[in-house]
Amino acid sequence: MADMQSITDTSQATPMDNADGSHVLHKQSDLQHSPTTPGNPGSFETAKKRSDATKTELEANPDRFTMLTGDRPTGRLHLGHYFGTLKSRVEMQNKGVHTNILIADYQVITDRDTTEHIEENTLGLLLDYLAAGIDPAKTMIFTHSATPAENQLMLPFLSLVTEAELERNPTVKAEKEASGHALTGLLLTYPVHQACDILFCKGNVVPVGKDQLPHIEITRTIARRFNERYAKKNPVFPEPVAILSEAPEIPGLDGRKMSKSYGNAIALSATPEETAKLIKKSPTDSERRITFDPVNRPQVSALLTTAGLVTGRDPAEIAEEIGDAGAGALKQYVIRSVNDYLAPHRERRAELAKDMDSVRDILHDGNRRANAVAERTLEEVREAMGMKY
Amino acid sequence: MADMQSITDTSQATPMDNADGSHVLHKQSDLQHSPTTPGNPGSFETAKKRSDATKTELEANPDRFTMLTGDRPTGRLHLGHYFGTLKSRVEMQNKGVHTNILIADYQVITDRDTTEHIEENTLGLLLDYLAAGIDPAKTMIFTHSATPAENQLMLPFLSLVTEAELERNPTVKAEKEASGHALTGLLLTYPVHQACDILFCKGNVVPVGKDQLPHIEITRTIARRFNERYAKKNPVFPEPVAILSEAPEIPGLDGRKMSKSYGNAIALSATPEETAKLIKKSPTDSERRITFDPVNRPQVSALLTTAGLVTGRDPAEIAEEIGDAGAGALKQYVIRSVNDYLAPHRERRAELAKDMDSVRDILHDGNRRANAVAERTLEEVREAMGMKY
Repeated sequence: MADMQSITDTSQATPMDNADGSHVLHKQSDLQHSPTTPGNPGSFETAKKRSDATKTELEANPDRFTMLTGDRPTGRLHLGHYFGTLKSRVEMQNKGVHTNILIADYQVITDRDTTEHIEENTLGLLLDYLAAGIDPAKTMIFTHSATPAENQLMLPFLSLVTEAELERNPTVKAEKEASGHALTGLLLTYPVHQACDILFCKGNVVPVGKDQLPHIEITRTIARRFNERYAKKNPVFPEPVAILSEAPEIPGLDGRKMSKSYGNAIALSATPEETAKLIKKSPTDSERRITFDPVNRPQVSALLTTAGLVTGRDPAEIAEEIGDAGAGALKQYVIRSVNDYLAPHRERRAELAKDMDSVRDILHDGNRRANAVAERTLEEVREAMGMKY
Repeated sequence: MADMQSITDTSQATPMDNADGSHVLHKQSDLQHSPTTPGNPGSFETAKKRSDATKTELEANPDRFTMLTGDRPTGRLHLGHYFGTLKSRVEMQNKGVHTNILIADYQVITDRDTTEHIEENTLGLLLDYLAAGIDPAKTMIFTHSATPAENQLMLPFLSLVTEAELERNPTVKAEKEASGHALTGLLLTYPVHQACDILFCKGNVVPVGKDQLPHIEITRTIARRFNERYAKKNPVFPEPVAILSEAPEIPGLDGRKMSKSYGNAIALSATPEETAKLIKKSPTDSERRITFDPVNRPQVSALLTTAGLVTGRDPAEIAEEIGDAGAGALKQYVIRSVNDYLAPHRERRAELAKDMDSVRDILHDGNRRANAVAERTLEEVREAMGMKY
């Protein structure tokens, strides 16, 4: 089956973002299966209120919060990931939140039958995290494949949900309908695996786009049921709160959704030349004068949005400045500003890449820590379930 | 939901037998979903041939074989388990087969929302294994809950089967139809968990009743797909062979299926008094003269079968001997012969129970070994999947 989908997803700060932004797992935006009655625990309004209240609390007491985010190592991180999630992860880390980043390598095979390039992609993610300011002394970075104690939670957690509940998950449902063939067992159960990711480290905040709210609801349900069933007096798990991202959706260079497979995404690790080439070949329209008009001129406006993001300027102001100089001048401006913006990141990345042994050691250390954290949680789980023999 | 089923299963030497013999997981006897064309890899005839050939090979070279069996710790082992599986496990062990016994504690919650008495049941199993002649120096005894590295295989393995394949499993299907409510995720995926149990230790023989053939087929499929997808040159997993049990089905004392919940099963750990009481109250018919006639006199015949098993005598001969002395005399004979037979087992068990710390240490040691074995297998899995970063 391999790379089944090429629909971009730049949804912001997902707990399990795709490094190539290309998988259906995160393209869902229908919340039709979540109840929407106000006050209902699953409604958007309730989630939004909870998110806002938690954000305020997080500003005041960041060290009371443990955050889990992650990426599937299916490709290179691009500007969409940078502004959508990476930047805010670094901010959270520096604020004093206990931050954890999962490289979800087993999730690569939810819908593919190959792990081609997985090492390259995993190490690439790691380099981008570090170059972007993730500090391994503060943030635990780890992979699924190296953390058995985390994965073990799958077993008790699978007993807490029904097949019907798994099938009701909008992403699982959509994938089933879209693909026309049977889901893998791993795709069907991936919301449970995500619950393991969040709960093994007692994560209580998860930055997500609103598309991912149903996933967090399953995690909350699992935590609640576990506590009710086995740990009434001393709850083992928190019910994590979804922190709704405020990052704007960033279009690809051509105005479509950003995706590696559309060739409209600038990889953080691309060279300045690759970046220039990509921007140069991005389509514009026949009107010479540059204006910022996302609805009628999506392509030109996407270039302006990109330039605006990396310069911190207003895209309309950039448009005015370029005016009749046309698309060529605009592209030159975008190339220069993107390359300027990414230069320090790329420099740090190149520097780090000179000593891959140390980079790998960071992952090994993160895996060791994640296993230790998971072992402590497992001990509590065994205790609660009466399984300490 | 708790204890959903009270239908006994004394099916012999299952990979995951129930200690209380009471769960639907193993009551299946329809193979309607397995293809039955001769020569088809899933057919009974093929499985039978493979089983016979393997048995012959096993006699010649026992040390080439690794066996996995296990029990769910849902109750006490009884005579049915003893003659159905425990005895043959000990024989396999003493023959020189690499034997592994799993106490499948996580499988208790496939269909219940409580782990009540799980410690008592687990330690009880352990005592019965040891008393029956399982030697922890030769046989690795371990639990699911303490072996994260084993459980981790769930993730890659879940990617190798589809939801449809999981639903086609006769046991899963029957449970879904019988219960009328949604399956837990754990019940739906339990054949995959069973594949982890068998494959983590590279088990290549699994003693089963023919009801369990579809489970072994899923394990074979998972092993084959993993090897094809990730390890073409150096296969990681064997395709285990189901060894079909030849043990006869042992009826409960009242002629019905043997089940703790029917009160017709003699627990190995019962006292002689409890045993006597149970046998005394077992129903017979109004005919004074004792004859062995399983079809027309199932209750009397069940008592004779039980006596026959523990004395090694022909039930018909016992019947003749008792003749007109009637049911009371028959029961006295059964009581005496069962208690005589179980006396050494019970004595060893009581002796072992005096030092539970040592018994627990045996389990701890088994868990350590199982984790070490699983870690080695996981390393091969990571290597094959390109996940050694």
